[in-house]
Amino acid sequence: MKKFLRFCVVGGDLRQIYTANSLVDSDYVVNIFGFDEKFKSKLSDKVKFSNDLKNSIELSDVIILPLPYSSDFKLIKSSLFSEKIFVNELMGFTRRGQFLFAGKIDEKFKKMLVNNDLNFYDYFAREEFAILNGILAAEGALAIAINETIHTIHESNALVLGYGRIGKILSNRLRDFGANVTVVARSFEDLAWVSANGIKGKSFEEVFSEIGEFDIFLNTIPSKILTEKYLDKVNKDSLIIDLASKPGGVDFKYAEAIGLNVHWALSLPGKIAPKTAGKIIKDAVLNILKEESHIFYF
Amino acid sequence: MKKFLRFCVVGGDLRQIYTANSLVDSDYVVNIFGFDEKFKSKLSDKVKFSNDLKNSIELSDVIILPLPYSSDFKLIKSSLFSEKIFVNELMGFTRRGQFLFAGKIDEKFKKMLVNNDLNFYDYFAREEFAILNGILAAEGALAIAINETIHTIHESNALVLGYGRIGKILSNRLRDFGANVTVVARSFEDLAWVSANGIKGKSFEEVFSEIGEFDIFLNTIPSKILTEKYLDKVNKDSLIIDLASKPGGVDFKYAEAIGLNVHWALSLPGKIAPKTAGKIIKDAVLNILKEESHIFYF
Amino acid sequence: MKKFLRFCVVGGDLRQIYTANSLVDSDYVVNIFGFDEKFKSKLSDKVKFSNDLKNSIELSDVIILPLPYSSDFKLIKSSLFSEKIFVNELMGFTRRGQFLFAGKIDEKFKKMLVNNDLNFYDYFAREEFAILNGILAAEGALAIAINETIHTIHESNALVLGYGRIGKILSNRLRDFGANVTVVARSFEDLAWVSANGIKGKSFEEVFSEIGEFDIFLNTIPSKILTEKYLDKVNKDSLIIDLASKPGGVDFKYAEAIGLNVHWALSLPGKIAPKTAGKIIKDAVLNILKEESHIFYF
Amino acid sequence: MKKFLRFCVVGGDLRQIYTANSLVDSDYVVNIFGFDEKFKSKLSDKVKFSNDLKNSIELSDVIILPLPYSSDFKLIKSSLFSEKIFVNELMGFTRRGQFLFAGKIDEKFKKMLVNNDLNFYDYFAREEFAILNGILAAEGALAIAINETIHTIHESNALVLGYGRIGKILSNRLRDFGANVTVVARSFEDLAWVSANGIKGKSFEEVFSEIGEFDIFLNTIPSKILTEKYLDKVNKDSLIIDLASKPGGVDFKYAEAIGLNVHWALSLPGKIAPKTAGKIIKDAVLNILKEESHIFYF
Repeated sequence: MKKFLRFCVVGGDLRQIYTANSLVDSDYVVNIFGFDEKFKSKLSDKVKFSNDLKNSIELSDVIILPLPYSSDFKLIKSSLFSEKIFVNELMGFTRRGQFLFAGKIDEKFKKMLVNNDLNFYDYFAREEFAILNGILAAEGALAIAINETIHTIHESNALVLGYGRIGKILSNRLRDFGANVTVVARSFEDLAWVSANGIKGKSFEEVFSEIGEFDIFLNTIPSKILTEKYLDKVNKDSLIIDLASKPGGVDFKYAEAIGLNVHWALSLPGKIAPKTAGKIIKDAVLNILKEESHIFYF
Repeated sequence: MKKFLRFCVVGGDLRQIYTANSLVDSDYVVNIFGFDEKFKSKLSDKVKFSNDLKNSIELSDVIILPLPYSSDFKLIKSSLFSEKIFVNELMGFTRRGQFLFAGKIDEKFKKMLVNNDLNFYDYFAREEFAILNGILAAEGALAIAINETIHTIHESNALVLGYGRIGKILSNRLRDFGANVTVVARSFEDLAWVSANGIKGKSFEEVFSEIGEFDIFLNTIPSKILTEKYLDKVNKDSLIIDLASKPGGVDFKYAEAIGLNVHWALSLPGKIAPKTAGKIIKDAVLNILKEESHIFYF
Repeated sequence: MKKFLRFCVVGGDLRQIYTANSLVDSDYVVNIFGFDEKFKSKLSDKVKFSNDLKNSIELSDVIILPLPYSSDFKLIKSSLFSEKIFVNELMGFTRRGQFLFAGKIDEKFKKMLVNNDLNFYDYFAREEFAILNGILAAEGALAIAINETIHTIHESNALVLGYGRIGKILSNRLRDFGANVTVVARSFEDLAWVSANGIKGKSFEEVFSEIGEFDIFLNTIPSKILTEKYLDKVNKDSLIIDLASKPGGVDFKYAEAIGLNVHWALSLPGKIAPKTAGKIIKDAVLNILKEESHIFYF
Repeated sequence: MKKFLRFCVVGGDLRQIYTANSLVDSDYVVNIFGFDEKFKSKLSDKVKFSNDLKNSIELSDVIILPLPYSSDFKLIKSSLFSEKIFVNELMGFTRRGQFLFAGKIDEKFKKMLVNNDLNFYDYFAREEFAILNGILAAEGALAIAINETIHTIHESNALVLGYGRIGKILSNRLRDFGANVTVVARSFEDLAWVSANGIKGKSFEEVFSEIGEFDIFLNTIPSKILTEKYLDKVNKDSLIIDLASKPGGVDFKYAEAIGLNVHWALSLPGKIAPKTAGKIIKDAVLNILKEESHIFYF
C-alpha cells in the first residue's frame, strides 16, 4: 500500500491513541486531534499532535473517527479532550474523495457522508474486527470471572450462552482452564462445532433443569434470555457475566432484587487492552484500504 | 420423536451397518438390506437382517441409502453385497410420502424422487454432517502424518492449505501436538479466526517464498493449488497429504515425477472410523426429521 | 475413613471457613472457632460456630490451624476475629494423640507439638497441596496480566522464569491464550518438559539478549534473579509479576526507581479463590489421614 | 562446545543414521560405520561413510553406539549391516580417555569400559532423553488408536494407566483430541497434576467398576496390571495398547484367549520417527558433553 498515505485520527479514547501509534509503527504519516496535552506522553514521537482540526483534516488522505463516532450525531466522541468537536465542523473541512473511517455509522451520518462525496467505511461492521475484538472481550470476561468468584475457573461449572464470536473464543479458553464447560447453542451447525472443540453443547431447553448447578454464567446473546423463570433457579453463590450489548441478556432488575451477583461487562476491549484494540482498528482500516486499492491507485 | 418410526437401511459399506446399530441403540425399529450373511456378526442383535428388499422398503417409514447412494445412477452402492441393488427396482417399492435419505443426490435421482412423491433429503449436504466428518478426516490425516514421516508432528513445520471445516479442526490438532503450524487462508475473516486460535495465518502469496521450509503439507482446497511452480520448491523429504475431494489440490503427476511423497487421502471417515461415521449419518437423519417433524406429526 | 471423626477449625481467614464448609459437605462433624459473629453467614448451616475454644478442642479428634498457623509463635493467625487466640492456651487444651494440622510449622512449634504428644502434620509441605495451589496462583497471575497491561495476553511475548509447579501451570495457560511464551529453565529435564508442552525453553543466559522484547514477565524463582543488569534492558511498557515468596525474585527498589511496573503477587490463592483454597486444605488433611489411617483404626 | 570434536557412529538402525546427520548439521565432523552401502543415500553428504572400523574409532574423540548397544554382549546391534561388529574388536580399537556413548549399558559392558579407561555414558538413562522419547511413543500410540479402532478418539472413553513421562504426554494429547480421558495414578502428587491438566484422575481400585465403559486402554505401567480379573470386564470392542517395556502390563495370553484386541507397542520411537529419535540421541550426547566439559577442555 502507498506508505505516503497521510492519516488523521480524531477524537475517541485511548484506543485512538494506539491506532495512531500503530499506524506510525507501520511507517505511515499520522496526525492526531482531540486530546488534551497531557495525553501527549502516550503518543509515539512520530505522531504529530495537532491543535488545528481544519489543518489536520485538510492535510490527510484518510480520516479515522472513534467507535462509536458519536452518541448524539452532533459531537464527535472525545472523552480525553476538554473541548468539543462538532460533527458539522469536521465535515466542513473534508474534501471530495477523502477516505473516512468510523465506528457505528448511523443513517443520518451516512447521508451526510454521501452528500460530501467521501469514501466512507464502518470498521465496526467488519467481520475480522468483530472476531479480534472477541479475543479482548474473552480475556476481560475471564479476569472478571477470576476476581469476582471465590473459587477457581478450574473445575468450575461454566455455562456459555451463545456461540458467536465471543462465545466460541470464551468457551475454548474456559475449557483450556480446566472448567467443566457447557455451551448453549441453537443450530445443529453450532452444536457440531461445539463438539468438534471438545465441549458439551445443549439447547436452552435441555439446560433448564440444570441451571442450579452452574457456578459461572457467561451470556453473549443480545436478547433477554435469562428471565425470572431462569434466574429463580440460579445458585445464589454463582456469578453472571453479561457480555451482550444493549439491551443485554439478563433481567438485571430481577436478578438484583433476588440478590444475584451480575456483571454487565460492556466495552471490555477499550478497558482491558486499548493498545490491542487500537491495533485492531488500524488493521481493519488497512484491510479495507487494501481491498479498495483499485480506487485510489492510479 | 416418534420412537415407532421404522427405518430401512439399504446398501453401502460398514458405515451403513453402524448407522443401523446406532438407530437401534436409540430404540428405533430397523431392518437392513444389502449385505452378505457374513456381515451379520457386525450387526446389533436388534437390527433385523433382511433378504427381501421389497418387504424391507414397504415396512419402513424412513429409507437410508449410502454415501454416495450410487456411482452410476443405476446401482445402489453396496460394496459388501455379492448381489446387485437396482435404483429402479428399489424406487418401485417406495410409496408416496415415505422419507428417503441419501448422500450426494444428483439431478437425475432428484427428478425420480420428486416423481415418486417422496420426502427426500441429502444428508451429505448438511452442515453439521460435514463438520463432524471433518473430525474423522482430521484424525485420519494425523495418523498418516505420524506414520508416513520419519519425524514427529511435534516441532515439525506444518502447512495447512484452506480453512474450512477440516482446515479448522486439523490446524487446531496440529497446534495441540506442538507443531509449528501455518494456515493459508484468503479472507480477512478466516485469518482473524486463525489468529484467535493461536495459529499463524498467511496468504498463499506470502507463503510462497517459505514453501521449502515445510515438513508436512495438508491441503483441503478442492482446486489445483499445488502446481509445478510450488512443487518445485517443496523439500524432497516432506510429506504432502491431499484431503480435497476430486480433482484434488495437487498436480499429482508432476509431484510423482519429481519424487515427492504425496498421499491423496480420500474417504477417510469410512476407513478410519466407520462406527463414528455411521453415528454421524444417524444424527444428521434424526436432526432433519426433528426439523421436519411438523410434516409427519398429526 | 471414619465419618465420625470430629474436626475443629481454628482461626485464619476465609480459607478456614471454606475448609470447614468443605468438611461438612463430606459429612464430617465440624466446629469452628476464631471468627467474629458477622462471618457466621458465610458458614454452612451444618458447621457449629463456637465461642469456646476449650470445649471446641476437647470435643474434636482433629484440629486444623491456618496457613501460616502464626507469624510470631505467640498468636494463632486470625484476621477475622476481634479477640486473640494464644498458641499456648490452645495447646493447653489438647490431649495426647490428637491430630493437629497446620501450615508452616516452625521448629519451636514442632518442639511443643512433640512435647504434647500430638500427631501433627504440616499440610503446606504436601506436594499435592502445592500443585493445586499453583492452579490458583496461575489464575490470579493471569487476571493481573489481563488487567494491568494495555494489550492482550494473546500474541503478547511472555517470559516465565522458573518451571516448578506454578511455572508449569502458568506457561500452559499462557500458551492456551495464544501468547508467544518462553520459559527460562535450567535443567535439561525441565527443558525437555517445556518442549513436550509445546513451549520454547531457554537458559537464563540465552534469554538475556532478548529481554527487551518481552511484554510480560512472570517470575516464580524465589531468589533475586531480575537484577539491575536485567531490569535495565526491560521495556518500560512491560509488566513484571513476581509470584515468588520472600525475598522475591526482583530487585523491587531498582525496578521502581527506573519506573517499571512491578506487581509482587503474594498470597494469591487466599485472595482470588478462598473457597477453592479451603477445599484444597481439606483435601490435603484427608489425604494425610488416609495415609496414616493405620494409626487410628483399631 | 569444541566444534572440532570428531564423532564416530557405529551400528544400530535408522536412528543412528539420523544421529550422524544431526551431528553434521550442528557442524561436527562425523564418520559412520556399520551400514550396508545402500543406506548411503540416507546419509547427509557431510557424513563420512566408513568401511574401516579401526580407522573410524581411532580418528574419533566420541563414539556413539546404538540403543541397545547389544542384545548379547558379543555383537554390536547393527540391523542394517550384512556383516558383524564384535564388541571385543571395537573395544580393542579404543584408547584411554575416549568418550563412549551407548544405550542400556549392562554390568558386563560397564566393567569392560572401566577397564579400558573410557569416559562412558548411557544416554538411555538420561531423564531428558526419556521425556522426549515419550513424545514419539505418544504419537505412535495415537496413530495406532486412530487406525485400530472403528471409532474416533474424539468422544471416546480412554483410560491411561500410569502417569510417568508417556502417561503425561499421552493423556494431554487425548484430551486435546476431545476424548473423555481418565488417568489411573497412585500418588496424591500425580493425581494433583492430572487435575491441573484438566483430566480426571482415579486410583486403580476406583476405576475397577467402570472398566467395561472404556473404548481405549493405554497402559504405561511395566508390571502385570491388566490381569484376568480386569480383562474379563473389558468391552470386547475396545482396544488395548500396551506401551510398557517387558514384561508389559497385560496378561497377553489371557487377553487373546478371550478375543480382545491387544497391541504391544514396543520401540515406537525408532519405528515412527527415526529422524527425531536420532536427533534426541544427539541432543542427549551433546548435553552430557556440555555438563562434562570441565573434563576435556584444557
